[in-house]
Amino acid sequence: MQPSEASPARTPRSPHVVIVGAGFGGLEVAKRLGKAGIAVTVVDRHNHHLFQPLLYQVATAALSAPDIAEPIRRILRRQESVEVVFGEVVGIDAAAKTVRLSDGQTIGYDHLVLAAGARSSYFGHDDWPPHAPGLKTIEDARRIRSQLLLAFERAEHETDPVEQRRLMTIAVIGGGPTGVELAGSIAELSRYTLARDFRHIHPADTRIILVEAGPRVLPTFAPELSAYAQRRLDALGVVTETGRRVDHLGNGELGIGGDHIPVGFVIWAAGVAASRLAAELGAPLDAGGRIVVSRTLEVPGFPDVYALGDIAACPDEEGRPLPGLAQVAKQQGIHLGRGLAALIGTGRPLEPFRYRSRGNTAIIGRHAAIFENGRLKIRGWFAWVAWAIIHVYLLVGFEHRLLVSIQWLWRYLTYENGARVIAAETTDQRRP
Amino acid sequence: MQPSEASPARTPRSPHVVIVGAGFGGLEVAKRLGKAGIAVTVVDRHNHHLFQPLLYQVATAALSAPDIAEPIRRILRRQESVEVVFGEVVGIDAAAKTVRLSDGQTIGYDHLVLAAGARSSYFGHDDWPPHAPGLKTIEDARRIRSQLLLAFERAEHETDPVEQRRLMTIAVIGGGPTGVELAGSIAELSRYTLARDFRHIHPADTRIILVEAGPRVLPTFAPELSAYAQRRLDALGVVTETGRRVDHLGNGELGIGGDHIPVGFVIWAAGVAASRLAAELGAPLDAGGRIVVSRTLEVPGFPDVYALGDIAACPDEEGRPLPGLAQVAKQQGIHLGRGLAALIGTGRPLEPFRYRSRGNTAIIGRHAAIFENGRLKIRGWFAWVAWAIIHVYLLVGFEHRLLVSIQWLWRYLTYENGARVIAAETTDQRRP
Repeated sequence: MQPSEASPARTPRSPHVVIVGAGFGGLEVAKRLGKAGIAVTVVDRHNHHLFQPLLYQVATAALSAPDIAEPIRRILRRQESVEVVFGEVVGIDAAAKTVRLSDGQTIGYDHLVLAAGARSSYFGHDDWPPHAPGLKTIEDARRIRSQLLLAFERAEHETDPVEQRRLMTIAVIGGGPTGVELAGSIAELSRYTLARDFRHIHPADTRIILVEAGPRVLPTFAPELSAYAQRRLDALGVVTETGRRVDHLGNGELGIGGDHIPVGFVIWAAGVAASRLAAELGAPLDAGGRIVVSRTLEVPGFPDVYALGDIAACPDEEGRPLPGLAQVAKQQGIHLGRGLAALIGTGRPLEPFRYRSRGNTAIIGRHAAIFENGRLKIRGWFAWVAWAIIHVYLLVGFEHRLLVSIQWLWRYLTYENGARVIAAETTDQRRP
Repeated sequence: MQPSEASPARTPRSPHVVIVGAGFGGLEVAKRLGKAGIAVTVVDRHNHHLFQPLLYQVATAALSAPDIAEPIRRILRRQESVEVVFGEVVGIDAAAKTVRLSDGQTIGYDHLVLAAGARSSYFGHDDWPPHAPGLKTIEDARRIRSQLLLAFERAEHETDPVEQRRLMTIAVIGGGPTGVELAGSIAELSRYTLARDFRHIHPADTRIILVEAGPRVLPTFAPELSAYAQRRLDALGVVTETGRRVDHLGNGELGIGGDHIPVGFVIWAAGVAASRLAAELGAPLDAGGRIVVSRTLEVPGFPDVYALGDIAACPDEEGRPLPGLAQVAKQQGIHLGRGLAALIGTGRPLEPFRYRSRGNTAIIGRHAAIFENGRLKIRGWFAWVAWAIIHVYLLVGFEHRLLVSIQWLWRYLTYENGARVIAAETTDQRRP
């Protein structure tokens, strides 16, 4: 029996808050409202909350996918007024105050929080995604891991040296934190973990190309930290192509600035755009497809609708949009959760959000990371240890912290990456 | 450049042994021959050796897939005369002494060891596999895990109580060790792990049906151990249907002995048959499709061809076929590896294989396992601890032992199953 489109399946008590997306922002809103006993429905198209900052380690076989994924139901288990729906919101009717799921069901809301995050963006090149997968979901990470390991398998099997060379050329597009982390990890995977595993190729000879359109890698960090990261990448043998744009992708070839480089595998870490859901609301969007919100996270012209995290363009005190960071989304979630609880409980109006940066960090490889907070700039071994501690601390759940710590320690001591599984789904695609 | 079918890509030095399959048997042969410096090529369609005895724990969200999978290359890294080919053998030309891979390439051999294992068998019902997945590979386990968790998600979402009841009915076909382990694990998952996660269903009410065609569960164990297992299954609330055969599967319905039971999800653990590769050789097969070998593991009429493990029907001292167990395959691998090394090195003929049972064990749930070795019969808490120690000990690699131990300890203390990830590939199939 499928419920009809017009009538919601169940009528929760009023006021009812619907939160779309259980990322860093959405989860915090749900927790705060749950603690206040307010009826909440969290809708997510995955059953798990994903710790995206470590996704690149799943893609490079250092961690298993479940290590960084926690069931949303488990996180919100104790908030009895919170319900979790595993489904995809595909439409919003702001006049009727309902959202529509992909299975046709509708859910009514009194307040709607849009926190559906971002997706990989290919700057309008709709033919590129199959040739250069992005890294946003567990499935993306597993696919990249399989294709990466497969490139070495195919090179080992290949007898033509030119083709072998092509297969062992791996490109990462985008010199932000994810691109640098991927390039560094792939370099260490090929230099150390796989070094002695093959008979006909030397994985250490793998050519890793990092392409960045801007003049330097990690452009959001201070120039001296970028320069340090660049030196570390050079030491790992990563070929960095800054100031160059991708103009062609496909058929085992990467085109940058007129050059055509034969490549075995390309990973896309160059750009993100807001979730497609942003466009369903009908509110003004910025160039990245993000919903323009006020400093109270309200969507102007859409009463009782809020947006936060990567799906929203929220101005800071000087009117500049806040960056798309996990800590921004998390702080916004805490702020809006508290604010909405007060609004619903006592009618107190929402207050403007103020972002307090806890500092930014990126990792290049073993003993090599950078950390920056205002004037404080740290690099090298100490930043690397700080990076690890921060990331373990931020993981949800003691079990994940323990398992990730042990695997990192193991990997540190042995140079072994444990999660080297090639999934069968990808092995039919032997040619890129 | 694709090598032509006629010429092998590379000519290894002679004598050259090709081993098809890197399971418990094939790996042991490779290790022994590698230690003797003999040229070996191991071909497997997966890049990893899989510890199948714990696969049911991946299927029931207790472990991550990489926890029980080890890259074949890593295991054989130090055996410098051993080469690993990631590919599928689809044909054998015993006259030309070559095997053919799915990509058309051929590999020549002087000695051929067939160790490709078994697959799920549906007793000729070719339409059943989509309705009741079997459990042989990492992909099978991930698919079962997703569909199992999805059944609860769909039940939570459903408003019709009849349909909800159907979705929360899970059947396991086959009362051998795998079937009992699956039924017990699913019972504990629904009774404990998921108990408080939903708002509209009580996972503890899940109806779990275990169907066994024979008169008792775990028929290869002593009757008193079967009876103990049956009592433990009863205590977990598993409905056991012994002496009944499946006669219909599909459209959310399970037919057993004329009854039609609405079911949400069915798992197949009822039968295995030898890998399809067995039939490619042209040698006589037994009823299970296994290659009939002599006690020396040679295939009569096919010089220099050997078969072992689940792909082979090997007689014991009294002429009865040996059971399809990991320890049989492993002991056969050690025996044949040593024997072939001696045959190639000094011309000493192969000796008959003698199986020495180290005992059989099966687990029903927390504090409940059975162990049998000849007259020694153990059940309950002590057998359960022994089961855990044996399985951790048999895992390949210290890291896996450590990670699995920690996760079991965690699960024991908290009743939490950590790997509850629903993969996106399966979520489009919302109807069974």
